Amino acid sequence: MLLTTTHYDAEQYELTPHGSLPDSYFHIPSAKYPDGSTIDWLQQDAAERERNQALRSEAGVRGILLPMLEASRMWLVVIVTGIGIGVIGACLDILVKWLADIREGWCSHDFFYNQVTCCSGTDPGEICREWQTWSQHFGIKFIFLQSLLQAFVYIALAIAFAGSAAVLVKAYAPYAFHTGIPEIKAILGGYVFDTFLTPWTLLIKAVGLALTVASGLSLGKEACCGPLVHVACCMVNMIARFFKQFRNNEAQKRKLLAAAAAAGVSVAFGSPLGGVLFCLEELDAFASESDVMWRGFVASAVAAVSLQWVDPFGTKKLVLFQVTFVDDTWRAFELVPWLFLGVIGGVLGSLLIRMNVQVALYRRNTILFDWPVLEVIGITAITAAISYLIHSKIVFSRVQTSELVANLFQECDPTKGDYHGLCNPTAMWENVFLLILTACIKFVFTAWTFGMKVPAGIFLPTIAIGACLGRAVGLLTQGLYRANPTSWVFLSCPPDPSVRCISPGFYAVIGASAMLGGVTRMTISLVVILFELTGALSHVLPIMICVMTSKWVGDAFNMDGIYAAWIAMRRYPWLPHTDYHDRGETGAHLMKPLDRLVVIQDDKYTVAELRRLLIENNYHGFPVVLQNQFVGFVTREKLQQTLDDLTYSAPDSAETTKCSFSHFSTLPVGNRVDLRETIEEAILHLRKEVPQEQVVSMFQRLNLRQVLFTRAGILEGMVTKRDVANLLMSHFPHTAALSQRPEHLSA
Amino acid sequence: MLLTTTHYDAEQYELTPHGSLPDSYFHIPSAKYPDGSTIDWLQQDAAERERNQALRSEAGVRGILLPMLEASRMWLVVIVTGIGIGVIGACLDILVKWLADIREGWCSHDFFYNQVTCCSGTDPGEICREWQTWSQHFGIKFIFLQSLLQAFVYIALAIAFAGSAAVLVKAYAPYAFHTGIPEIKAILGGYVFDTFLTPWTLLIKAVGLALTVASGLSLGKEACCGPLVHVACCMVNMIARFFKQFRNNEAQKRKLLAAAAAAGVSVAFGSPLGGVLFCLEELDAFASESDVMWRGFVASAVAAVSLQWVDPFGTKKLVLFQVTFVDDTWRAFELVPWLFLGVIGGVLGSLLIRMNVQVALYRRNTILFDWPVLEVIGITAITAAISYLIHSKIVFSRVQTSELVANLFQECDPTKGDYHGLCNPTAMWENVFLLILTACIKFVFTAWTFGMKVPAGIFLPTIAIGACLGRAVGLLTQGLYRANPTSWVFLSCPPDPSVRCISPGFYAVIGASAMLGGVTRMTISLVVILFELTGALSHVLPIMICVMTSKWVGDAFNMDGIYAAWIAMRRYPWLPHTDYHDRGETGAHLMKPLDRLVVIQDDKYTVAELRRLLIENNYHGFPVVLQNQFVGFVTREKLQQTLDDLTYSAPDSAETTKCSFSHFSTLPVGNRVDLRETIEEAILHLRKEVPQEQVVSMFQRLNLRQVLFTRAGILEGMVTKRDVANLLMSHFPHTAALSQRPEHLSA
Repeated sequence: MLLTTTHYDAEQYELTPHGSLPDSYFHIPSAKYPDGSTIDWLQQDAAERERNQALRSEAGVRGILLPMLEASRMWLVVIVTGIGIGVIGACLDILVKWLADIREGWCSHDFFYNQVTCCSGTDPGEICREWQTWSQHFGIKFIFLQSLLQAFVYIALAIAFAGSAAVLVKAYAPYAFHTGIPEIKAILGGYVFDTFLTPWTLLIKAVGLALTVASGLSLGKEACCGPLVHVACCMVNMIARFFKQFRNNEAQKRKLLAAAAAAGVSVAFGSPLGGVLFCLEELDAFASESDVMWRGFVASAVAAVSLQWVDPFGTKKLVLFQVTFVDDTWRAFELVPWLFLGVIGGVLGSLLIRMNVQVALYRRNTILFDWPVLEVIGITAITAAISYLIHSKIVFSRVQTSELVANLFQECDPTKGDYHGLCNPTAMWENVFLLILTACIKFVFTAWTFGMKVPAGIFLPTIAIGACLGRAVGLLTQGLYRANPTSWVFLSCPPDPSVRCISPGFYAVIGASAMLGGVTRMTISLVVILFELTGALSHVLPIMICVMTSKWVGDAFNMDGIYAAWIAMRRYPWLPHTDYHDRGETGAHLMKPLDRLVVIQDDKYTVAELRRLLIENNYHGFPVVLQNQFVGFVTREKLQQTLDDLTYSAPDSAETTKCSFSHFSTLPVGNRVDLRETIEEAILHLRKEVPQEQVVSMFQRLNLRQVLFTRAGILEGMVTKRDVANLLMSHFPHTAALSQRPEHLSA
Repeated sequence: MLLTTTHYDAEQYELTPHGSLPDSYFHIPSAKYPDGSTIDWLQQDAAERERNQALRSEAGVRGILLPMLEASRMWLVVIVTGIGIGVIGACLDILVKWLADIREGWCSHDFFYNQVTCCSGTDPGEICREWQTWSQHFGIKFIFLQSLLQAFVYIALAIAFAGSAAVLVKAYAPYAFHTGIPEIKAILGGYVFDTFLTPWTLLIKAVGLALTVASGLSLGKEACCGPLVHVACCMVNMIARFFKQFRNNEAQKRKLLAAAAAAGVSVAFGSPLGGVLFCLEELDAFASESDVMWRGFVASAVAAVSLQWVDPFGTKKLVLFQVTFVDDTWRAFELVPWLFLGVIGGVLGSLLIRMNVQVALYRRNTILFDWPVLEVIGITAITAAISYLIHSKIVFSRVQTSELVANLFQECDPTKGDYHGLCNPTAMWENVFLLILTACIKFVFTAWTFGMKVPAGIFLPTIAIGACLGRAVGLLTQGLYRANPTSWVFLSCPPDPSVRCISPGFYAVIGASAMLGGVTRMTISLVVILFELTGALSHVLPIMICVMTSKWVGDAFNMDGIYAAWIAMRRYPWLPHTDYHDRGETGAHLMKPLDRLVVIQDDKYTVAELRRLLIENNYHGFPVVLQNQFVGFVTREKLQQTLDDLTYSAPDSAETTKCSFSHFSTLPVGNRVDLRETIEEAILHLRKEVPQEQVVSMFQRLNLRQVLFTRAGILEGMVTKRDVANLLMSHFPHTAALSQRPEHLSA
């Protein structure tokens, strides 16, 4: 009903510049729902229910075995997806490591070895001769020429990687760019977007992700959350196609997608619990049924086990950034810098979201829109140049982001060697300056890069920014303590400043939590992911407090996390799970009144008229009335199908036969078709005096597609999911900005 | 409507033997809902909404400040509750430690010191002379007399502790026994049970808990989950009474209760994340609104911080049973014993639930029902005697359960000393035998004790049983490895058996997870609680796998966890969150048809008739019809209030004035009262063809109190929450067993 047409338009403009829907490569259209529509959960559940009953009612052993077979197929899909995504994640890790290393040199005895594997045979202290930098390989002697060649190869390969990723995305899988989380949120909420989940997308997203990460762009690491979630969803979608029970039921498919998403996060962070909680909190994926959480739990565990099995890092551990603290306690005065970091995280997080939105708008409305690949190449060149060429002291931005984060999280340990002088107490101010500078550079690049036409995640860049800031604050606190070890503030520390009391590594973890809290506005899942990522279980309380603070501060600036902002800009029909409070409005304010609805008059319309009605209006469904008395609601799909079937049995009488939808029909039996079967069983009626926030909450909790308003049996109006989604996103200033035609094109 | 009368009866029989509701000590009745009814979430939310709008519409600065004041009051309650429950939890820990120690001796220089505090001044190796056993104190020289006196004091004090707890419970707070989780689940779902949350209950439950735990009964430790959750809920209920916004709104109060429950679990296990997840998964407490989870998160964190501040164990750590593994890796072959433990846990968990249910039925239907205090004393005497007197080798059951668990989780470390020979490799078979025997004894006692008239938790005894079994399996696996260190099974272990490969301490953790999974059927929250409890983050995957297995196995035997079983026996109107699948039934099968409903005829009933109707029927509400045409639904409370107000303005005309509920009234204006305002705004209508499982799912997700069935405006029937609860609990064989009159009383 209602505004769905504009919605189709929105999608059209979204991803191709010329107003036509892109060809869907390898796309097998869904049986019932076209892309861009919203599924009807109640109806899909009812269909699944009927199928189950049919299976159970089979005679004899079949009636027992068939339902068991169904269940085992479901578990098969879940487990295979878990294993698959674990293996893919591990392979991507290895691929990225190799691609990143090849920018600087190559392994002389086996081209496909990365630096660590290549040098694994050498003893500690011995120089690894198997690994040759490019200048060594070409035998260049002059230092200046060496540097020049190294820089040239580094930047050229970075551009080649990022450029080919962008070309791949543009040519073969237009939906494989960005993070994918906003789309998956919308899909799990019932939005139909099958071209987003094709095998091609899976392939391009995985390869493209490895290429872009290796290019050194500021956008997530080898296995960052969003893209891997997208890959997992593509995979489960591909596997589920083999089974009729999922192919034909969009609701069942979404339950599998939720489990796959959990597995994706689990692999991305090595965080099986975090995966389940991410789905629960951010994707709101388990709202539909409680056993979906259980599936997510299994998928998540299986994925983590297979990742650990392949063991891409050779550490035999799931924890990516293992943190080892000198002692497990923390002091009360440390809450002050931590709360400060929380506030900083909230402010910067909001700022990052705003800047990212502005960049997205700018990109959409300028010439950049027509040259996405060039944009990628340009930004990569700048990033690579800045990373490589500027004074070699600013090394913090040149290494892989994940390596940087791991080092920032690390405690200073004299036995392990110093990471770029971070532990040198005399260079404190220099280190603080460099860290803040690195954070600023990363901040600007991240705001720009997240949204370009390459696969990208937001988690790791955010962690890196936060870790830099946190480490800086930690160094400052440590410096303060070393300068005044006997001050009353530091009473709880040992008076001898050579004994360690403040651990800047943990401040980096806190900074990362604060920044993530500000950008994503997640709470509990963030805390779990962070301590599964670092193993810092003993410090869970400071992390919680810091995430709390940063969410509070961030919410004061703007209410949405970055994913919600992108959903709003793309105008997906997704209902945020937030509490909506109206200002006294009722359902009457929200509903389309009867005179603006396209309704079917019971006993009035002929078969031919109905068919014309279906062609002229592309709404999801139509209310049926008998002299304003509400009879029922028919969906487009069911009505279309019934009418198609009818035509074959009596093609000539279409213009005269009337359609009857109710028991009360007064028409003679010979002159009517009985369409009572097409009336939907599960349709909610409300009175229009219902407060608006209760209407919204029903849509949120029941995942409805429409609600009808009646009084004493008389139809008064209707509200659809899109109306509610529009209402909930109306506070965001740039709603639908990315789904409108760009200014320079519409001119 | 419908069956609520039997429900009131159920409550009556529940807790007093003579069929009358117990006097509610200190009980301030709720404004609207009597105990035993179910709140109407939609209506309560609407009331809150109106109040908020009234506040916001205040002129000028008041319109901004008043809503902020409201919000800050809410956070005040949440934070004060968090701090309070943290401090109470810590105090209980200290009290229990002292009470338990006093059974064996006393501190000569300060009576109120426990053994550890008393001896804290002595050097390691020095004998602590300040702490005197009772036989030392009385200067008894003969060893036989010493033992006799020690045993006598031990058993006598145990009986005194447990007996006084039972007396306190029976006399002052009849609801302070048991765990409280089933009741809190029901309350959070909308059940009204204010006498369960009085300040007296708080006091008695806290003190009684300390007494019972110190008595050595097999029922949870100083801070076990259920009782502390109950204490937290009582506390927030007490604090919230000071603020009108919570006193007058049952829905708002429940949102605070959910946060308090999270804080309770957080303190019980030192597990702030586990608290939030427990509320999410087991209590299903955040279904109502998403920001409730956020409150729970804050309450949980605050409670954990204040617990850590008081630091009752003097360890400066939140982790109760810190586990330190020799190395962080685990081997694939270990999955076999772990899966075995998972299966055992599932089987034994189901068995424990069944036995516990049978004991509860037996207690209810025999003479035991009339002598609860004697039962407690008897069981305490037997427990104490078995713990103390039987061969001193079976020491595993004599120490505090928490101490036992901590030691079982501990790895063998030559530098730390051996705990009762557990690490002696030559005594393997003896240890295995003793561990299994201890598990059996604890199993029987737990099945009996959980449900007696003393505060009790099920978590810690279950952990203890599981830990014993797990450690036994671990010892066996270790023995097997030591016997065949070079077998192909153990290829991944070092070939030298003196190097440690298998850590039986972790097997104890796995055993505990399996047992807990079998008893509670929780999944993700259990995993989080367990690794927050032990710090075993690196081993989260085996714990997950084991909990999965034990839940699968347990579900194959009986579908419900122990809390759901008790809810069913007590017949609370609580809707389990499980997926319900009908067998083709529709709403028509579930609903009470029109002819069995008490309906109000619009324009027909006089004021006096309506008042009589309200007196004769104690249903929650009544549908209003005009010649079978559905007009609306009025709740008992609103109608009663409106009629009461009417009487004062026109007391004489009550017999003649007709009541009109709709716009269509044809009565003359002078001869009718307009009751349109009493019609509920938010009432769901459905068609009776709606599949039953969709009706159930709406009740589950929207927390409805009733749904009406109409067709073309004509009322056809109605379903209430109790109908749905009955339907969902009908598979449990002993539904309502504890809410029926005991056999020996009804005879």
